Amino acid sequence: MAIRALVFDTFGTLVDWRSGVAREVERLLPGLDGGAFADAWRGRYQPSMEAVRSGARPFADLDTLQAESLDDLLEAFGHAGVSAAVKRELVLAWHRLDAWPEVPAAMAELRQKFVLAPLSNGHVSLIVALARRNGLVFDAVLGAGFSRDYKPKPALYRDAVTALGFAAEETLMVASHSNDLAAAAGEGLSTAHIARPHENGPAGGETGPAGPVTFAARDLADLARQLAG
Amino acid sequence: MAIRALVFDTFGTLVDWRSGVAREVERLLPGLDGGAFADAWRGRYQPSMEAVRSGARPFADLDTLQAESLDDLLEAFGHAGVSAAVKRELVLAWHRLDAWPEVPAAMAELRQKFVLAPLSNGHVSLIVALARRNGLVFDAVLGAGFSRDYKPKPALYRDAVTALGFAAEETLMVASHSNDLAAAAGEGLSTAHIARPHENGPAGGETGPAGPVTFAARDLADLARQLAG
Repeated sequence: MAIRALVFDTFGTLVDWRSGVAREVERLLPGLDGGAFADAWRGRYQPSMEAVRSGARPFADLDTLQAESLDDLLEAFGHAGVSAAVKRELVLAWHRLDAWPEVPAAMAELRQKFVLAPLSNGHVSLIVALARRNGLVFDAVLGAGFSRDYKPKPALYRDAVTALGFAAEETLMVASHSNDLAAAAGEGLSTAHIARPHENGPAGGETGPAGPVTFAARDLADLARQLAG
Repeated sequence: MAIRALVFDTFGTLVDWRSGVAREVERLLPGLDGGAFADAWRGRYQPSMEAVRSGARPFADLDTLQAESLDDLLEAFGHAGVSAAVKRELVLAWHRLDAWPEVPAAMAELRQKFVLAPLSNGHVSLIVALARRNGLVFDAVLGAGFSRDYKPKPALYRDAVTALGFAAEETLMVASHSNDLAAAAGEGLSTAHIARPHENGPAGGETGPAGPVTFAARDLADLARQLAG
């Protein structure tokens, strides 16, 4: 069965969150190790979403979750006295991330043939900011904002398939994280792994899929070539 | 306060539903009066959504509602024996509508300065089909698919404001229907009326707003000029 639509993980897969957050942290808090701060912030990402996934709290978007973990983090890094205005700018660091270099051209090519939508844990305004900054054009924005919950909850993948209106196997989940792809495959979606060996800076990133996938690609341009094939 | 985002009614405001549906009806059911059929189908539009708005049934998308009213309609027009395949094509007539002539260029101009999203009773796959057919680029797709309910329920306007992340008055509801604009204004949005004197064919259409609005425009190009101020 042919692929008709591509749905994308965003942080790590399309944009380089670590370099972007580190850059903004070093701009706003001179002298601080931006990479270490970005890693520590990202480390609090999954636990903060878990309270929503478990139903312990109603849906709160990533800006809210990032702002909550930030207070804690600033204290751990010895910057507890930072102003509310700087804290707000720090949260907006996540809106100011650059795409990996091959992404804009590959996305433009893919959009000629396929319907494209982010299926990210980022909410609408965050995704819109990232897309506009990097010149990416999507047909719709799905994911956390649309489903009011967080991946890898199965409803997000099902909602995306229903919203785009193709069969699950015609809908290709694209991600650099094998757990995201496994969850998508569990709902019947086709899957494409994108290698992002530098996602986590010195700590590396996935160079290949940890389990079975429909496509394994070196980067998004490679996936576009495979799908054109 | 400046406008930051535009949210659009779609059927009537951006696309000419009557001509498009009439054309597809006459193609699929030769000899039938396509305009009269389109009018009768549109006449069943509000009552079919009311069952969702009232909570009498869970959210069902417009394809589902249009398919339900179609059976009834075909009987009324003496075509009860139509095949399931033709019925499916008739429902897809609503995916194959042309934009009003000035819309594509005006939208491209507006997108240079503003975040754009449909705030329509059309669901995601329907909006994606219309946007792609007419070369319209949106930043996100809001409305019925996003909120699982139908305008003019207040939640749809509030959800759109929240999703795009601007203040309500920075968010401009654009529509050719005064009741849609009144509901948006009730939630604090700014409003722009677009005249569509031929929306309903011989029955006309709104040539101006029935109540107070922030902007009143002859067409979308005129609104773009006013916003470029």
